[in-house]
Formats: sequence, structure tokens, C-alpha cells
Amino acid sequence: MREKWSPEFSDAFVSSKAQLGNGVEIGPGAVVHDNVRLGDRVRVGPHCILGQAGPGTPDGTVIGEEATIRSHAVIYAGCSFGRGLETGHHVVIRDGTRAGENLRVGNFSDIEGQCAIGDYCRFHGYVHVGRGSTIGNFVWLYSLSIGTNDPLPPSEVHDPVTIEDGAVVCVGAILMPGTHLGTGAFVCAGARAEGAVPAGAVIDGPDGRIVNHVKRLVHLGGGLRHPWMNHFRRGFPEEAFGRLEALRDEILASKLDLDVRDGE
Amino acid sequence: MREKWSPEFSDAFVSSKAQLGNGVEIGPGAVVHDNVRLGDRVRVGPHCILGQAGPGTPDGTVIGEEATIRSHAVIYAGCSFGRGLETGHHVVIRDGTRAGENLRVGNFSDIEGQCAIGDYCRFHGYVHVGRGSTIGNFVWLYSLSIGTNDPLPPSEVHDPVTIEDGAVVCVGAILMPGTHLGTGAFVCAGARAEGAVPAGAVIDGPDGRIVNHVKRLVHLGGGLRHPWMNHFRRGFPEEAFGRLEALRDEILASKLDLDVRDGE
Amino acid sequence: MREKWSPEFSDAFVSSKAQLGNGVEIGPGAVVHDNVRLGDRVRVGPHCILGQAGPGTPDGTVIGEEATIRSHAVIYAGCSFGRGLETGHHVVIRDGTRAGENLRVGNFSDIEGQCAIGDYCRFHGYVHVGRGSTIGNFVWLYSLSIGTNDPLPPSEVHDPVTIEDGAVVCVGAILMPGTHLGTGAFVCAGARAEGAVPAGAVIDGPDGRIVNHVKRLVHLGGGLRHPWMNHFRRGFPEEAFGRLEALRDEILASKLDLDVRDGE
Repeated sequence: MREKWSPEFSDAFVSSKAQLGNGVEIGPGAVVHDNVRLGDRVRVGPHCILGQAGPGTPDGTVIGEEATIRSHAVIYAGCSFGRGLETGHHVVIRDGTRAGENLRVGNFSDIEGQCAIGDYCRFHGYVHVGRGSTIGNFVWLYSLSIGTNDPLPPSEVHDPVTIEDGAVVCVGAILMPGTHLGTGAFVCAGARAEGAVPAGAVIDGPDGRIVNHVKRLVHLGGGLRHPWMNHFRRGFPEEAFGRLEALRDEILASKLDLDVRDGE
Repeated sequence: MREKWSPEFSDAFVSSKAQLGNGVEIGPGAVVHDNVRLGDRVRVGPHCILGQAGPGTPDGTVIGEEATIRSHAVIYAGCSFGRGLETGHHVVIRDGTRAGENLRVGNFSDIEGQCAIGDYCRFHGYVHVGRGSTIGNFVWLYSLSIGTNDPLPPSEVHDPVTIEDGAVVCVGAILMPGTHLGTGAFVCAGARAEGAVPAGAVIDGPDGRIVNHVKRLVHLGGGLRHPWMNHFRRGFPEEAFGRLEALRDEILASKLDLDVRDGE
Repeated sequence: MREKWSPEFSDAFVSSKAQLGNGVEIGPGAVVHDNVRLGDRVRVGPHCILGQAGPGTPDGTVIGEEATIRSHAVIYAGCSFGRGLETGHHVVIRDGTRAGENLRVGNFSDIEGQCAIGDYCRFHGYVHVGRGSTIGNFVWLYSLSIGTNDPLPPSEVHDPVTIEDGAVVCVGAILMPGTHLGTGAFVCAGARAEGAVPAGAVIDGPDGRIVNHVKRLVHLGGGLRHPWMNHFRRGFPEEAFGRLEALRDEILASKLDLDVRDGE
């Protein structure tokens, strides 16, 4: 805490060594350490902490332009985010996490560090992403879902999860250590997934059984049918549409051996 | 952040346009925006944010008298609360939520906006109430329970839950999109409820089966028997007792066809 | 809020009556009330609140030396912690909790008060410990695990959980009211434990069945075998090793009647 606070932000604690782009706004009580670089028009809410020191993480943190970081969020040193980051309130993102464009992280979520996250991911509230997870593009993690990483807790074995593009993890679901969710896989609310989940598979229940292919997930009222890119584009910019279509085609082309269902 | 902070609260950031009742207390670091009206004797803890701007929510936020809002809570613009609101620490309540008297919301809970909440509700910690939920009077939501609202995530379909008076949702339970909990219904710990749940029904397990009528829920040691108004009144004011008794009678009068249990 | 803030900490709100040891650091915006005693080299992060008043808790709070309390944590009056406490961000610890040495509590955890906690316990994120719980030494509570205390919610019956030394509760597990986890017991991810769980038992599923003895929990890749003290000591000081070994021997000596498994 030997940093010098910049007099320009009299209500906040902004290091005079932090690098701020044009049009940056910083709310009352926010702390911005000297290893932080904020792109143009980044908005930092009250009582946030950016560039928090972690053990052995001397690197800086870079937050791309047009970000909105809501109040009471804590982002460690050694992270980087592409443009358009948006966080809820009370978020924690630990050291060494690298995310692509337009990540959205909901209130109270905790990304435990050293994670690699692609573009356009959406995490809702209380999402707990274990240290070292690998997450692709267009991934949805719903509230209170968990990605674990220790197969024999507590141990020194580190086996984080991998989530491929377009996968969806519903509320309260648990990804056991080492889970690998294939492209466009779908884990139902409260289910517990384990091992390699094929592309396009729907997983349900405490045993994480494959119960369907996502293309058979329909909403009768609305006449909607998954993969979700069929009917949902809200919040994605036009330049992402081509990637969404290619992803949908890849998921539709995936095949599952669902014969196991007959044996039940 | 063009607001002028009132010099009266030198440790906090209180807009000079905010309307404060008599005996209001505001802790250090709290931010009160200009669209906020606080009733008499409202107490705001340190580092809270009241009247947070949301997308397209120009309305003010009104907090009735005798409220206690604990530290680090965030309440958006466009909300209203009857007298006696009590929140835990680190709570988030988003725009457009309207609650009756004496709502209590525990630490880390997240009410996602546009919710209608009746009188005397009690939410414990980490309760996640999806946008647009409708919640009656005397409803209990225990820790880590979730009310969802998207039947085919992600989609544009919005099907939030409805919870009738006196219902109880235990820890870690999930209310699937569109769940309608009848009067006095009871969802067991970790269960997953779906669809229309009749008044007085007890729901358990991942399939949300009806396993009992609440009047058969007993605690042998204490000789207690539900509905809970039979034996629990702590924290409710005398003027609520008549409503509690009428509610108990309504729940007792509800009938369930439990024959399905014989077929299992 | 009639306290006088000490001029020594110009960025924080430290009561002039608080007792601070040598080398104490206090971050911007932190509030330290006058009933607080901090040992040598305690570090308090930004926007923390220490000594928060609760109902009827006039006692002080004592935090032993070498503690690290991360940002936005709230610790009530009437608590005590042995040396080496370490908390994550956004933690809440309510009144009357007494913990031994080197407790570690992860981000967003909530210890609901009047709890007795032994030495060297590790709680991860969003851990919810109900009021009045009794927790031994070397206990692991993983993220989103819950210890409940009301057997017929809502009621006035108070039946908190007891967790013996060396027990492990995995992510998302629920301990029902009155659960007594024996020494070294292991509750699997998402399981729901109830009643008396024998020493060394592994519990799984929504019905909390005993599925194994912990000494049969192995990780094939790493060649590891529980009890966890066999292969894990990271973060414990040398003076704890003797206790860990004695605990391992006690767990290994425990016997389970697993015949019930044959009947499945």
C-alpha cells in the first residue's frame, strides 16, 4: 500500500502509475493499482479493486476498451480481457485469467485464476470456475454452476475442466474434475457431469447420463429448437453471426450413440 | 457520476438530490444516488449503493421507513419496498422490483429485477430470484435456492416462477422455469420442482415428485406439525397474526391426490 | 456511528479505540470498530468491516497475528480467531464464532455465527455454515456446501451440524439439520447427508447412502489413496504433522458395516 493515489480521482484510490484510456470513469472508493491498464471508455463501479496482488503474479492486468465493471468487483493482477468485458457486482477474477472479447460475468461469480476463456462467453451469477479451466467461445454457464478441479479432494492432483464452444451448463450443475464438455453439449439443471461428454449431448441427473441430443431439445410453446444459435442472438454483435452459424452446423453434424437408452 | 455529493455525510457519497427522512443513518463509503427516497430511520450500511442506474430505468427507488440495509448491498433504481425492509450484506436487488412490508433478504442474495414480492417474505443467503418472478406473502426461500425463468436456455422465452403465499423452498432447491408453487407448498432441500405444484404439496428429489401433504410434516422431538404457522411466528408483528391464521386454515383445507404414491 | 476515526489511517475508518498490533495494514475504505483487537502483522483489505454490531453482542472481536483478511469481508463483534486466519473476498462471519489457528475461508463464504471451529480448517467459496455449528480440526468444506440447522423450516427448533476432525464435504453437498459427520467422513459432490455418519464413511447421492470407506477412495493416475493425510500436507505447518498422522491412524482404524451394499 505504498502506492500514490492520483489526485485526479479524488473519491477513488487510483495509482498514479495506472494507465487509463480516454473517457475512463471510476466510481467512488474504487482501488486501481499501478499494474493496471484500462482501455478507452472503461467504466469501473464503486468499491472495485483492480490489479489486486496475488502470490507470485507480478504481471499487469489489461482490460480492453468499452468494459463495464460493476461495483465491488475484484480483479487480480496478471489478467487480460478483450474489449467489451461486462461484470456484475461482487465478482472475483483471480490472477492469470485470459479472456477474449465481450465476456459477461454475473453477480457473485468467482473465476479462480489461470483460466483461458474464449470470446462471447456468458456466465450468470455465483458461477464458480476452478483454477486452470479451459473454456471456448460462446459458452453459457448458468447460476450456481461449478467447474471443479481436484479428483480426490484434498489432493495435489489438478484436473480442471474443459468446455468446448457453444456448450451450455444449466443452474446448479456440477462439472466433476476433468470433465470435457464437447461442442454444444448441454448439462441440465442440477446434473452432475463427468468424463468426456460428446459434442451435442444432453446430460442429466446425478449420474450424468446422456439423455438426448441437443437438437431434440425443443420448446413447444415457442416452436424453438436447439442448438440455441437457431433462435438466440441477443447481445452478440453482427461480426459474430458467421461464427455462430458455423458452430450451429458443427453441433447439428455431431452424432450420438443413444442406444444405451434402450437398455435402461 | 455528475452528481453532487452532500457535505452533510462527509464519509459517504450522498447525492444532494436524494430525499432522506428523519433519523436516516448512512455508513462510510455508501453511495446514494439522486433518484432515491429513504423513509424515516432507514439505516444504510457502509459501501452500499442505492439507486444504481440500470438500462432504461429512470424511476426512483423508494425505501420505506425503519429499513436496515447492511453493508455492500446494491439496490437499483426503479424499486420500491414497504416499511421494515431488512437486507443482509452483499445483496443485489435489480431494477423494477416492488416488495411489500418487512421483506428480509439474506447475505449474497440476488433478486434479478421486475419481481413482485408480497409482505413478510424471508429469503436467506445466496437466494437467486430470476427476473420477473411473482412471490406472494409470507414466503420462505432458504439458502442457495433458485427460481429460474428460461425454459430452453439460452432463449428469448421468459417463463418466470410464481410462488403463492406461505410456500417454503428449502436449501439448494431449484424451481424450474414456469414453476407455480401453490399456497403453502414445500420444496425439500436439493429438490427440483417443475410445473404446477398443488397447494400444500411437499416436493422432493430431482424429479420433483409430490411425496406428502405439508400437514404430515412433523418434528417428533418438538411435537411440531406443519403448516409452519402452527408453531412459528417469530419476527412477525401482531398485526400479521390474523393473516397467518387464515393462511394456515387455507393450507389445511387443501387436498392432494396422493394415490400416485401407491403406484411407485 | 458515533465512533471517532483515527487520523493515522486517512483512507480508512479505524476507530481510535481499536487495538492494533505492530505492522498492521489496513486498506482504503475499511471500517474497524472500537471493539476490535488485531494481532501483529494483520492485514485488512479494502472495504472490509471488522467488529460489525449484531443484536446483543457487546463483546469485542479478537483476530490473532499474521491474519490476511481480503477485501469486502465483514466480521462481526464477538468473534475470535487464532493466529493465521486467512479469508477470501466478500466473506461474512457473524457474531460469536470462535475459531482456532489458521482457519482459511474462501470468497463469498458465510459463517452464520455462534460456531465453534477447530484448528487448520479450510473452507472454499460460498460455504454456508449454519448458526451454532460445531466443526473440528482439519475439516474441509468445499464450494457451495451447506450446513443447515432447522429440521422443520421454519421452526424454532435448532439442530445444527457437528463435523469431526478431518472430514471432507465436497462441492454442492448439503448437510441436513443435525447431521453428525464422524472423523474423516467424506461427503461426495452434490450429496445430501443426514443423521450420524460413521467415521471414515463415504456418503453419496440424494439419499446420503454410505457407499464406501474413505480408505478405498483412490486416484489411479496419481496412485493416491485416502485418508487425505496420506498424500496431502500443503499449507500446514510442521507442528501440525504429528496431529495429521494421529488423525490418519484413527480414520484407518475405523470400521464400517458395508454389508448393506450387497443388498442393492
